[in-house]
Amino acid sequence: MAEPIRPGATLGILGGGQLGRMIAVAAAQLGIRTHAYCPDAQSPAFDVASAGTVAAYEDEDALRRFAGAVDLVTYEFENVPERTAAIVAPLRPLRPGVKALATAQDRLVEKTFVAALGIPVAPFRAVGSEADLAEALADLGTPAILKTRRFGYDGKGQVRIEAGDGPGEAWAQLGGAPAIVEGFVPFAFEVSIVAARGPDGAFAAYEPCLNEHRGGILRTTRLPSGLTDAEGEAAAALARAIADALDYVGVLTVELFVVEEAGGRRFVVNEMAPRVHNSGHWTIEGAECSQFEQHVRAVCGWPLGSTRRTGTVAMRNLIGDEIDAWRDLLAEPGLHLHHYGKTRARPGRKMGHVTVVTP
Amino acid sequence: MAEPIRPGATLGILGGGQLGRMIAVAAAQLGIRTHAYCPDAQSPAFDVASAGTVAAYEDEDALRRFAGAVDLVTYEFENVPERTAAIVAPLRPLRPGVKALATAQDRLVEKTFVAALGIPVAPFRAVGSEADLAEALADLGTPAILKTRRFGYDGKGQVRIEAGDGPGEAWAQLGGAPAIVEGFVPFAFEVSIVAARGPDGAFAAYEPCLNEHRGGILRTTRLPSGLTDAEGEAAAALARAIADALDYVGVLTVELFVVEEAGGRRFVVNEMAPRVHNSGHWTIEGAECSQFEQHVRAVCGWPLGSTRRTGTVAMRNLIGDEIDAWRDLLAEPGLHLHHYGKTRARPGRKMGHVTVVTP
Repeated sequence: MAEPIRPGATLGILGGGQLGRMIAVAAAQLGIRTHAYCPDAQSPAFDVASAGTVAAYEDEDALRRFAGAVDLVTYEFENVPERTAAIVAPLRPLRPGVKALATAQDRLVEKTFVAALGIPVAPFRAVGSEADLAEALADLGTPAILKTRRFGYDGKGQVRIEAGDGPGEAWAQLGGAPAIVEGFVPFAFEVSIVAARGPDGAFAAYEPCLNEHRGGILRTTRLPSGLTDAEGEAAAALARAIADALDYVGVLTVELFVVEEAGGRRFVVNEMAPRVHNSGHWTIEGAECSQFEQHVRAVCGWPLGSTRRTGTVAMRNLIGDEIDAWRDLLAEPGLHLHHYGKTRARPGRKMGHVTVVTP
Repeated sequence: MAEPIRPGATLGILGGGQLGRMIAVAAAQLGIRTHAYCPDAQSPAFDVASAGTVAAYEDEDALRRFAGAVDLVTYEFENVPERTAAIVAPLRPLRPGVKALATAQDRLVEKTFVAALGIPVAPFRAVGSEADLAEALADLGTPAILKTRRFGYDGKGQVRIEAGDGPGEAWAQLGGAPAIVEGFVPFAFEVSIVAARGPDGAFAAYEPCLNEHRGGILRTTRLPSGLTDAEGEAAAALARAIADALDYVGVLTVELFVVEEAGGRRFVVNEMAPRVHNSGHWTIEGAECSQFEQHVRAVCGWPLGSTRRTGTVAMRNLIGDEIDAWRDLLAEPGLHLHHYGKTRARPGRKMGHVTVVTP
């Protein structure tokens, strides 16, 4: 049994992006120091973390020193290498745990796991060859989406296959990486559930938020989502079933397709993320306790915070050179600008976000 | 003319306490890096600042290196030595400026300055000797308060003189430091105005907050304050007159006594602080833009944020071992805990605060 975590403790964070940056800020409010670990010295989290290690995720000595300098470890991206987690986990509590990481970083494992809980997912097939893909498309029909099993994010590692497209081109585009193909889900809209689970099984979910994507990247999140309270509770129950089955500790995000049918609406799980999530950024100003503070509370084994929403909320990502409008955005009364401090505004890169809460 | 400040710039902060810590967090949200300068390596601001210098305020080489590493400089306490400011100010924009610092760090200069603007202050006399004090008490009567001209905070450097007390003991208690004595103001309650002024003269004030002190230390801040809107505007106008006269840049706090008389209520300025202030902590959750973000916006020359209040607000300081209740406080739904990460909970030391906002 690990020692209870108290203010003054140090939380190690694997990953140095804006999610790590916002976790570090939330941790500081609670008196928790942070130590960010990331191979890229220019990473946003280093600006606010109490300490930092710039080293490769494969650097075993650096990982051991990092573990020795912190009281517990979390991560801000799901592609933490298995070996990295295996080095850290025996030395310090790793929250969420290795099972959540292993499940979420492989789309085939994740979909199989969720489906085994009796939760609807898009129809899918494992694909290891062009022949597999041809066979799967014959089963699932088109449109379909071919996705790499690992390392996909923001629409990367995905190819949409339309009626009439052969399997060859799509397969070649993914470069022969192990993949899955998913049948198309005719969804009306997309929501996500951001929820937290503590080491004692305590659970708290934010209400579902309505997400709009463009080019595979989240553009806006809005609340209320348009779902009924009963639907919101059903969505939270799905997230809880997943979290319980993973013995999950921390904030977890589940993206859901909402399908409208004659009999009503139903949910299909799109994917999960074992971490704080872009679609939860609205909670910084729009909920009593932000997803970042909630994550720190959960991994520390502290009481979970209130997920109550404080108004009508709209969050918009600032992608690429949209961040150049920062000064005009600052002049909009009541708008909250978050600038991640990234030095280069590459196209498609998340540079910041803005949130408006209307009481 | 200095270069315009843009996200990615580094804000130097003289001082390393919780105010500097909260400025650093607010700066990070806006993409501004921070560099804290403080002689004490255990200071709270170092946990979140992007860079830090541990050096004496008299260390001229360290100050020059610090100035060379940042784009502009602010401070989180008004007792920055004159010489420190004189070294930094020619190298980088110092905001608020030297005039604000010189005025606010000497009670005699401050009161003389405010009175010269036609703004009511408590009756006061300069005191350089026991004989001065005796003469002043004969003029002002008792109760009266003897205060050192410099370096007082949280009730330190103050002695209350009651009817029948001779001047000798009070004078001895302050150790012969240059002082002022103030006549007693029969106030009904105390409020403060937290306001910001930009380099272009833009001005924005939060509404007055009701402050309760105990033992010279702020205990609680509440809003609404009980003042009328017209009284709130009058209080803001006092703050603006002071800020304009100082050509002030940044957040400024003015503490006011509210005196109830037959004809109505009137304000008497108690003191000013050329910085973010404990009585403005409520703005983190209780206003659209916090005093810390507002300070960063102002010193950077950016548009000021919305000071709109989002609900009924109560802020309470956690003094000394009150911080030990952190876990129980975290369990209260909707309560926001701020733990400053200080390692030792000395009696009278501000260790954190809690805020509740009721819509």
